[in-house]
Amino acid sequence: MEIFIYELLGTALMILLGNGVVAACLLEKTKCGGAGAAQWMVITTAWGFGVFVGVVVAGPHSGAHLNPVVTLSLALLGKIPLASMPAYLAGEFLGAMLGAVLVYAIYYEHFKITQDEGLKRACFCTEPAIRKPFSNFLSELVGAFVLIFVIVHFSDPSIHTQDPSAKIGLGSLGALPVALLVWAIGLSLGATTGYAINPARDMGPRIVLALLPLKVSADFGYSYIPFIAPLVGGALAVGVSALLI
Amino acid sequence: MEIFIYELLGTALMILLGNGVVAACLLEKTKCGGAGAAQWMVITTAWGFGVFVGVVVAGPHSGAHLNPVVTLSLALLGKIPLASMPAYLAGEFLGAMLGAVLVYAIYYEHFKITQDEGLKRACFCTEPAIRKPFSNFLSELVGAFVLIFVIVHFSDPSIHTQDPSAKIGLGSLGALPVALLVWAIGLSLGATTGYAINPARDMGPRIVLALLPLKVSADFGYSYIPFIAPLVGGALAVGVSALLI
Amino acid sequence: MEIFIYELLGTALMILLGNGVVAACLLEKTKCGGAGAAQWMVITTAWGFGVFVGVVVAGPHSGAHLNPVVTLSLALLGKIPLASMPAYLAGEFLGAMLGAVLVYAIYYEHFKITQDEGLKRACFCTEPAIRKPFSNFLSELVGAFVLIFVIVHFSDPSIHTQDPSAKIGLGSLGALPVALLVWAIGLSLGATTGYAINPARDMGPRIVLALLPLKVSADFGYSYIPFIAPLVGGALAVGVSALLI
Amino acid sequence: MEIFIYELLGTALMILLGNGVVAACLLEKTKCGGAGAAQWMVITTAWGFGVFVGVVVAGPHSGAHLNPVVTLSLALLGKIPLASMPAYLAGEFLGAMLGAVLVYAIYYEHFKITQDEGLKRACFCTEPAIRKPFSNFLSELVGAFVLIFVIVHFSDPSIHTQDPSAKIGLGSLGALPVALLVWAIGLSLGATTGYAINPARDMGPRIVLALLPLKVSADFGYSYIPFIAPLVGGALAVGVSALLI
Repeated sequence: MEIFIYELLGTALMILLGNGVVAACLLEKTKCGGAGAAQWMVITTAWGFGVFVGVVVAGPHSGAHLNPVVTLSLALLGKIPLASMPAYLAGEFLGAMLGAVLVYAIYYEHFKITQDEGLKRACFCTEPAIRKPFSNFLSELVGAFVLIFVIVHFSDPSIHTQDPSAKIGLGSLGALPVALLVWAIGLSLGATTGYAINPARDMGPRIVLALLPLKVSADFGYSYIPFIAPLVGGALAVGVSALLI
Repeated sequence: MEIFIYELLGTALMILLGNGVVAACLLEKTKCGGAGAAQWMVITTAWGFGVFVGVVVAGPHSGAHLNPVVTLSLALLGKIPLASMPAYLAGEFLGAMLGAVLVYAIYYEHFKITQDEGLKRACFCTEPAIRKPFSNFLSELVGAFVLIFVIVHFSDPSIHTQDPSAKIGLGSLGALPVALLVWAIGLSLGATTGYAINPARDMGPRIVLALLPLKVSADFGYSYIPFIAPLVGGALAVGVSALLI
Repeated sequence: MEIFIYELLGTALMILLGNGVVAACLLEKTKCGGAGAAQWMVITTAWGFGVFVGVVVAGPHSGAHLNPVVTLSLALLGKIPLASMPAYLAGEFLGAMLGAVLVYAIYYEHFKITQDEGLKRACFCTEPAIRKPFSNFLSELVGAFVLIFVIVHFSDPSIHTQDPSAKIGLGSLGALPVALLVWAIGLSLGATTGYAINPARDMGPRIVLALLPLKVSADFGYSYIPFIAPLVGGALAVGVSALLI
Repeated sequence: MEIFIYELLGTALMILLGNGVVAACLLEKTKCGGAGAAQWMVITTAWGFGVFVGVVVAGPHSGAHLNPVVTLSLALLGKIPLASMPAYLAGEFLGAMLGAVLVYAIYYEHFKITQDEGLKRACFCTEPAIRKPFSNFLSELVGAFVLIFVIVHFSDPSIHTQDPSAKIGLGSLGALPVALLVWAIGLSLGATTGYAINPARDMGPRIVLALLPLKVSADFGYSYIPFIAPLVGGALAVGVSALLI
């Protein structure tokens, strides 16, 4: 139960901050306008810190997966009991949906005056810059591979652990490496598909978008790529890591 | 007395740096021009580091609340004696006023040549991008909820504590998590109302604006929202946290 | 063998993220457009974090040189056995080539629609803003001097060491100082030649560019400068450091 | 002698990176163009990291003052012997001059093709956005006050100390708080006069500019403000700190 609640809270905070910054950048009449590289910096920075905040809150309670790819990978590595997987996955998807609802609530007036359907959809889920299934799949796969491969190699004991004694020393700063990792993946590998690298982050808000009265297509035709490719990338990262050890 | 002095100093430093960067971005003929996303990055970064600096200075002496919402929340949680609240609140409001006066003094020549009333007011207090009381209230409430909810979950013992032994290890870097948190809230949730999330940060400089011979309306008609909503958000965060434990 | 594998993996991750961000900024139709200072910020930030990620992964296994200049300098200082140099150098060059191939694969569709030869080449290797061999050589020499001179002075025991006990305390955050150092060198000294400061980072991807069917000149006429100058700069840094001690 | 050498090296590195980024942003045909807020972000970030790098190198050897205001303030506080002041000051001024020469050497070709005298001068020394002696003096005074007041309140023992045992734990990351502080001062308070807040940082390169064959006025008429005001601000910060304790 603690796992479910904290994965839900951590993921909701991450999506609130992560999708919130997209709304800040793309919707009409916000205090953050912008285009080009400056906008990309704003979005990727806030996603990095959104991960930071989610990990800070959920870390000591559930290990802060916040992402089914992390849950699957740690299960494959035998680091979490299989019986805990439903609690993780339910928390992650419901948390992502809750976060998306909060973004909609906060930016409600800005959604109302924004015409462009694509910009409104981008505040919920990802969309590729160039729609080519093979390339898009590869982008999401490599992004998730890097995420999991590096997390597995973290030498910081306070990430993704439930051992409270591991907290001594760094405290909440122990969440910084994973935030910098996600910031880097976003800046460098996210410019093709928008780096879902997390099925819950993409599908949860996509379902919310379909349920909301926004009259914006949820583009489910693309949704299988950010759902499946990150899981494949994570599994590959676990495989390569296992080979190395 | 130590609490009052250090809350005053810490809040003054935070407002000096936080409102200073708004002046740097919005007033005429400064070395930092700018618009759009790049400006938003500059403003939110400097506010994050302004919090960092305030916490570094006040942390070991008063716990560095710098915000009546933090004081109220920690009082509700029973972590500070109620008798210390007046010293905290007085230090926070007077510190915010002192910081605002310093920004005015430093940017005096730039205030003189800037015509736009709204830009000059923004160097003191917040104003919503779209004026809708319900939405604005919600924005400030959620922003402050995130602030307090995450602070309550920090596992770093050197934040918001007066225990000097907790300083060993991280030193002043212990102030970094709360700075990153405020940076994230600003980037992602601040683009609607300008993220006061702190009644002292908004009302203190607003009163200074009203007293200064700038002939700029202090817009007190809006001021109740950044005053009340953050307190409600903080109380809610305390309530949810209490439920969880 | 562990040295070879981890230098290869660490360098590949660094180049994937480092050259990836150049592709994100320069190729057509990515989600990160941009020009000017905002683009420079995006590129230098991601290179800094690319180094962070590479050091996190390779640090505990090979010491995370990721750069023949670091390998040469530590060999000159007697900090690594000469017999390990081939494993380091082979890992670094092959890793840089692997990273470059991955960037090409991920951004394949964007390479296809980008016409400008110079922009496509910049996603692989460096090119000076003003082509003057003496000045370009000096830029690369000073950049690498700063890199090595500061690394030699790091008081953080968890960088460039294989001693696992040194990891206790900072964990993966121990990779942050070298990331900030590379970020700084990029921002301040990289605007002339694009700061290779690493023969493997420049020559590895340059060879990949020549082998790929992109019909873009690999500009080998310039390649001797980013190959030789950083090695000279590193050797000088070792010499000055030795004089100081 | 160790103090002199390391203050010289640390200050030279700081000025090389700090003035280097100004050259990167302002001179013609560099890889970093830019204007407005994005440029301000690039400049203030690199100055923050320039301080980081200088403190990393000089910290364990001389305490890394890098600034006569720090030296004067610590002398007033009785934290360094008065007899060491000449070594500190000589190292700081000569180091700043060395750094300025290196920036000129690296950006030589870019200086050659830049016409604007003001832009070339800005690569050496500061100049106010609006020339008003009283306001400019106040800006530099407050900036240096904040610098010294916060440094005095750092609870991190590894900054500005020669005690090697203080290094255990944070290592070179102990230099991060002062870097974030300078980043914040730059972003928020630097947009009026360019935040010298350091007589050596301004006067050293200014003298180099006068000696170089660039035919650019060194504007000595303004130089007394960034020379004197920071010293007054630092002395005031020491006085207020002494009152508090």
